[in-house]
Amino acid sequence: MLVSDAAPLTQDELGCIDAYWRAANYLSVGQIYLMDNPLLRERLRPEHVKPRLLGHWGTTPGLNFLYAHLNRIIQDRRQPMIYVTGPGHGAPGIVANTWLEGTYSETYPSVSRDELGMRRLFTQFSFPGGVPSHAAPETPGSIHEGGELGYSLAHAYGAVFDNPRLVAACVIGDGEAETGALATSWHSNKFLDPVGDGAVLPILHLNGYKIANPTVLARIGDDELEELLRGYGYEPYLVEGSDPPAVHQRLAGTLDEVFDKITAIQLRARVDGETRRPRWPVIVFRTPKGWTGPKEVNGQPVEGTWRAHQVPLPDVRSTPARLVALERWMRSYRPDELFLSSGAPRTEIVDWLPRGDLRMGANPHANGGRLTRDLELPDFREYGVKVVAAGETSAEPTRVLGAWLRDVIRANESHRNFRLVGPDETDSNRLSAVYEATDKVWRARIEPVDEHLAPQGRVMEILSEHTCQGWLEGYLLTGRHALFNCYEAFVHIVDSMVNQHAKWLKVSRELRWRMPIPSLNYLLTSHVWRQDHNGFSHQDPGFIDHVANKSADIVRVYLPPDTNTLLSVADHCLRSRHYINVIVIDKHAGPNWLDIDAAALHSARGLGIWEWASNDKGDPDVVLAAAGDIPTTEILAAADLLRRHLPELRVRVVNVVDLMRLQPAGEHPHGLTDAEFDAIFTTDRPVIFAYHGYPTLIHRLTYRRHGHEHLHVRGFKEKGTTTTPFDMLVMNDMDRFHLVMDVIDRVPGLARRAAGLRQQMVDRRTRHSEYIRRAGEDLPEIRDWRWQAR
Amino acid sequence: MLVSDAAPLTQDELGCIDAYWRAANYLSVGQIYLMDNPLLRERLRPEHVKPRLLGHWGTTPGLNFLYAHLNRIIQDRRQPMIYVTGPGHGAPGIVANTWLEGTYSETYPSVSRDELGMRRLFTQFSFPGGVPSHAAPETPGSIHEGGELGYSLAHAYGAVFDNPRLVAACVIGDGEAETGALATSWHSNKFLDPVGDGAVLPILHLNGYKIANPTVLARIGDDELEELLRGYGYEPYLVEGSDPPAVHQRLAGTLDEVFDKITAIQLRARVDGETRRPRWPVIVFRTPKGWTGPKEVNGQPVEGTWRAHQVPLPDVRSTPARLVALERWMRSYRPDELFLSSGAPRTEIVDWLPRGDLRMGANPHANGGRLTRDLELPDFREYGVKVVAAGETSAEPTRVLGAWLRDVIRANESHRNFRLVGPDETDSNRLSAVYEATDKVWRARIEPVDEHLAPQGRVMEILSEHTCQGWLEGYLLTGRHALFNCYEAFVHIVDSMVNQHAKWLKVSRELRWRMPIPSLNYLLTSHVWRQDHNGFSHQDPGFIDHVANKSADIVRVYLPPDTNTLLSVADHCLRSRHYINVIVIDKHAGPNWLDIDAAALHSARGLGIWEWASNDKGDPDVVLAAAGDIPTTEILAAADLLRRHLPELRVRVVNVVDLMRLQPAGEHPHGLTDAEFDAIFTTDRPVIFAYHGYPTLIHRLTYRRHGHEHLHVRGFKEKGTTTTPFDMLVMNDMDRFHLVMDVIDRVPGLARRAAGLRQQMVDRRTRHSEYIRRAGEDLPEIRDWRWQAR
Repeated sequence: MLVSDAAPLTQDELGCIDAYWRAANYLSVGQIYLMDNPLLRERLRPEHVKPRLLGHWGTTPGLNFLYAHLNRIIQDRRQPMIYVTGPGHGAPGIVANTWLEGTYSETYPSVSRDELGMRRLFTQFSFPGGVPSHAAPETPGSIHEGGELGYSLAHAYGAVFDNPRLVAACVIGDGEAETGALATSWHSNKFLDPVGDGAVLPILHLNGYKIANPTVLARIGDDELEELLRGYGYEPYLVEGSDPPAVHQRLAGTLDEVFDKITAIQLRARVDGETRRPRWPVIVFRTPKGWTGPKEVNGQPVEGTWRAHQVPLPDVRSTPARLVALERWMRSYRPDELFLSSGAPRTEIVDWLPRGDLRMGANPHANGGRLTRDLELPDFREYGVKVVAAGETSAEPTRVLGAWLRDVIRANESHRNFRLVGPDETDSNRLSAVYEATDKVWRARIEPVDEHLAPQGRVMEILSEHTCQGWLEGYLLTGRHALFNCYEAFVHIVDSMVNQHAKWLKVSRELRWRMPIPSLNYLLTSHVWRQDHNGFSHQDPGFIDHVANKSADIVRVYLPPDTNTLLSVADHCLRSRHYINVIVIDKHAGPNWLDIDAAALHSARGLGIWEWASNDKGDPDVVLAAAGDIPTTEILAAADLLRRHLPELRVRVVNVVDLMRLQPAGEHPHGLTDAEFDAIFTTDRPVIFAYHGYPTLIHRLTYRRHGHEHLHVRGFKEKGTTTTPFDMLVMNDMDRFHLVMDVIDRVPGLARRAAGLRQQMVDRRTRHSEYIRRAGEDLPEIRDWRWQAR
Repeated sequence: MLVSDAAPLTQDELGCIDAYWRAANYLSVGQIYLMDNPLLRERLRPEHVKPRLLGHWGTTPGLNFLYAHLNRIIQDRRQPMIYVTGPGHGAPGIVANTWLEGTYSETYPSVSRDELGMRRLFTQFSFPGGVPSHAAPETPGSIHEGGELGYSLAHAYGAVFDNPRLVAACVIGDGEAETGALATSWHSNKFLDPVGDGAVLPILHLNGYKIANPTVLARIGDDELEELLRGYGYEPYLVEGSDPPAVHQRLAGTLDEVFDKITAIQLRARVDGETRRPRWPVIVFRTPKGWTGPKEVNGQPVEGTWRAHQVPLPDVRSTPARLVALERWMRSYRPDELFLSSGAPRTEIVDWLPRGDLRMGANPHANGGRLTRDLELPDFREYGVKVVAAGETSAEPTRVLGAWLRDVIRANESHRNFRLVGPDETDSNRLSAVYEATDKVWRARIEPVDEHLAPQGRVMEILSEHTCQGWLEGYLLTGRHALFNCYEAFVHIVDSMVNQHAKWLKVSRELRWRMPIPSLNYLLTSHVWRQDHNGFSHQDPGFIDHVANKSADIVRVYLPPDTNTLLSVADHCLRSRHYINVIVIDKHAGPNWLDIDAAALHSARGLGIWEWASNDKGDPDVVLAAAGDIPTTEILAAADLLRRHLPELRVRVVNVVDLMRLQPAGEHPHGLTDAEFDAIFTTDRPVIFAYHGYPTLIHRLTYRRHGHEHLHVRGFKEKGTTTTPFDMLVMNDMDRFHLVMDVIDRVPGLARRAAGLRQQMVDRRTRHSEYIRRAGEDLPEIRDWRWQAR
């Protein structure tokens, strides 16, 4: 690994930066321990110490050291930069730094840069009503929650895409580096365009330990680590040591070299037109865990070991010797040299810092909603398929959507604020029209046989849902727009990332200074019912259940029944802010039910009675409801059978696009009132509900509704295999024949009257099953079925 | 990268192995295309071809090539080996090979090694009622489902742990290699003990393309790829080419060297006592995607491009020229030289193959239940905490469990069939007693300051839930036992892996030849209610919801209310087979409610009325139910308040350990009958149910129960932050005071009578909130509350 032997800091500069670092360390320790006497004006007494010591010291001094030195670079080079804090529990450090630079007090005026503010700063940390121990939405300058580890590097890349002036300094914990998400996101450098994008500077903070173990990367030896980072395509620089003055010089020299290198790479690409992939620098920063903290506690080494991970001196309130040790530790930073008696940092500690928006706590990209520009959206109505009569024509929904997305890309090309991401599935998901407008960005080798790969492009594909999601989040959090297209079953791979993003949205919504950001939009279009060749492993509609557990003011789920409704829903989602929108629709050709105006109205209402398919005269014997494209077709086919065979039966057909409409109004902002719900579903008639996913979700959303005891839901009941589309329905009892049987079984008085029809339905199911096992495909009469308007 | 220049095959051997490869390729193409005329006795006609062409050719010839050559190694060296098929959709190849070696027909006698069997073999592939296109439970010799990508390497490592004779040859797709899970699981070599474990031979199958894109690793250049693999700690060998005879010699030479190297590493460790981490070999196998398939279709290159991914010749039935092309392609393998007119493979094609259990399709490790030995389990009753009166003492549940686990480890040490895995949390989760019996396995550098790290050990920790889960699955699938301890919120990281394992269990349960394997046991013990210092990012109880969507015959969820119940539940789980068991309990000290015998009875029943806490005289006014440790305490505290203040109110206290008991008996094997349910919960009295997780899950499980409309559930409603334990309850309205308010609001006639008590509850909530915001900890009266037996 490269080691800088420059020593660029004058003694004054070194003194200055070291004093700043000591101040940040002092403030970090104070946050972990104190609730009073912040300036140590008097000897520490037990009541100055928090009753519950919660916090993590281990990673903090390293984070502070890096923050200090990056400030020097920002100031010297007028380099806009954000700081992504990968290591868990790094908040004391980031909060301390933003307080020193002034952004914290600007964001939270009550936490002023004086003694009172410092006391509040200390007390609030990991305290009821206060702030968490991870970098979080509450932390100025952060776009990254440090609670669940692994996403820092993908977030950093997402942030710099289309921000050519920006550098994201991304500190990666060596614990975090063991996660899958992090391990693969190093490869993001093959998707970064040095012309149109900014730069990421990964800094692997090799402090050696996790909670209770050494880290893998700290114990494989420098040679292997260098090979690994070079294998990931980077040029590694090593900065190590435990003697602060020496490490100050080493890091300063290295940062000078590294930023020169970043500039050189960008100039070569931007000025000379170089298109080969550069080797971007990475810094390996090896300093002791809990650096400058207690060396030993109870005769056991602490600094430089995993024992420094959390609170290195426990039981301070109840153990006088510990109290003394804490005071000695805090005084070792020489607070009198750092703070005025007012509590404000001394001028010489902070006057060299960047000002205004160059402060990392104030970088506008880290409060992306401030920078969001609405997308220019072409009128989706112009892309609608022509529908003269319901069900007479068919279309491939995502292929049509692809044309609209192509024009979304064109319309916003000059703003560079929209991307389409997916794990190698954009083409398979039939969105390929977008390639008429753009390419897939690819900075690795391109060969003549390749199609649609280019050094620049609006589409990003890597076979890692984690990386896709991480890029996307970073891109959204910095205020831009995107759509993630993914196989339905495998979006579960990012369940936990979705949790964390949902939590970020929920908390940031409650912070007045955080501006709403564009929504996280999923298009799940290779779904459970059409995995004909992929089989059981690809059949899982549970992502909807997963997101439905998140806060109601964050989550929206849409199940458009046809192409035109999809267009309307997609338009709505790309206009929305601060939601997680999940759209589920099949990519295969399916019937068109609604013309574009009806579709727009239907999706705006979220659900409704389809009068044209109903014969209930306002008083149904049974309600046939559907949510999802395949269920809609089966419900209509069942309605068709009923109207042929039992014309006197009054059938109402209801279609649900916006799943959250089913919830009570008090539970979800989209929820219908009970009166509305009752008017549509009735309170006492059987409702046969065909649903795209696991039936229990519908019960979970509706169990408080009046008619719930009459609600009978069909859906996916974990019966899957490699088989035909209709056989999948039969296996799960959601086929048209079974739905008719359900109606016969549930409408009072029908069982006897329709016994013959019921037997006919049983026979037709059997006939179908026998046919496909022989022929390998569905019966033509099912494949070719069309709704007959009458 | 190392390149072998040996050419060890004689012309005879080369001819033999090439003929075998052609046979496997022929059978693979046949599976994708044909449903009749398998031996091409007549010219292909459209009706011989399947109506729906579903399958993936791209990866198959490479998989076949490797399978052939590994057979030579197995035969030459009597080396037991399993074959892990990482690339997606590799089933045609594996099925073809196992048919050739005879294991397929032994497993499925109707698919015999003759013309009839070959026709069935072809027809069943990706056909209704047939077999999937991925290696799957149905595939003999497989422990790995190739549907969702990323887990092959971790599965391979899991399989060879404690199997010192075994080699797992793990083919990794270069698409799969982009996933997070795969990218980090390369580091598994730091956890493999060459003495007690077998070896993994990773083979990176660099065929260059995914569905529609080149792969990253194929386009970074050989130098970078070599650095990457060396950085992961391996010694890479390159085998590349497209001319079969040359590649045969190269692969044969390389495999000879590589297996010599594996043997040498093992001997050095086993005989010479070498403890330094070896550099295990890895093979980079670069051959064209869709090798030997159509070179061009429609004037576009297919072989060697992404266009060979699926079905390279589409529309064969309807396009005569394509039919001709298919026949030409199949005849290019010269089937007459490969198969007898009976359809059986010619002797010279197969007589050199391994026999019996050495055939990879018959390796007993790949049907792990065959090898499972019950764990020796020390009597958990002896580890129970003493309980004289309910709630008077407290214990740290997982610390007590740790002592039992320590002795489980000791009792099974000689069988080497139990491991404890976790992402760096075993100590934090207070299971540290296990270190009295064993260490954490660690083959990277060990330093003097380290504790409990050793080259051998039963505990495995890496900060990657994916790797933990993958190891675990591999270990279980090969018939051994394990427990995964994990933070509750972050187990969502493996949601999708759990899905796939649940699917594996479900399908394999239906296959008579697959023996049940030990259960996948989760201990989630840093849970939503006690994330005092971690805050909102660590608060998510949704994993229970996630697993509850899986097949009822697979999933079990346990919420033991105290230490003794945990012991009983853990004992039950470690004895069970073929389940996914989820145990959730806090690690902090909590009250002991049941003595060990009562706990054993309670957990066997799964739920029950706690008579000692009830005063309902068989006819309650209200039922207070709890599932989970923290809810149990709050319910009892609420019962205590009610009995003090409203002594005439008849309160029944119910505790639920086994959540699935709530489901109807028809939905889950553990489900109570309606009569049982009604006897406990009543049909008409209010039930106030305090639940560990999201309240909707309880509704989802019970919506069909008679008394459901009277059921009122409290639980986590996504209100979280860094705060005290009791404040978390207050935020989510599950605190004792609110539960009392719920009772007052719901028991008819109580609202007026208990208005004063209700106000008192409101005031006590307020008082608590004010106190903690000042003092930073819960009111002593809450922290110190004890149940008073009376």
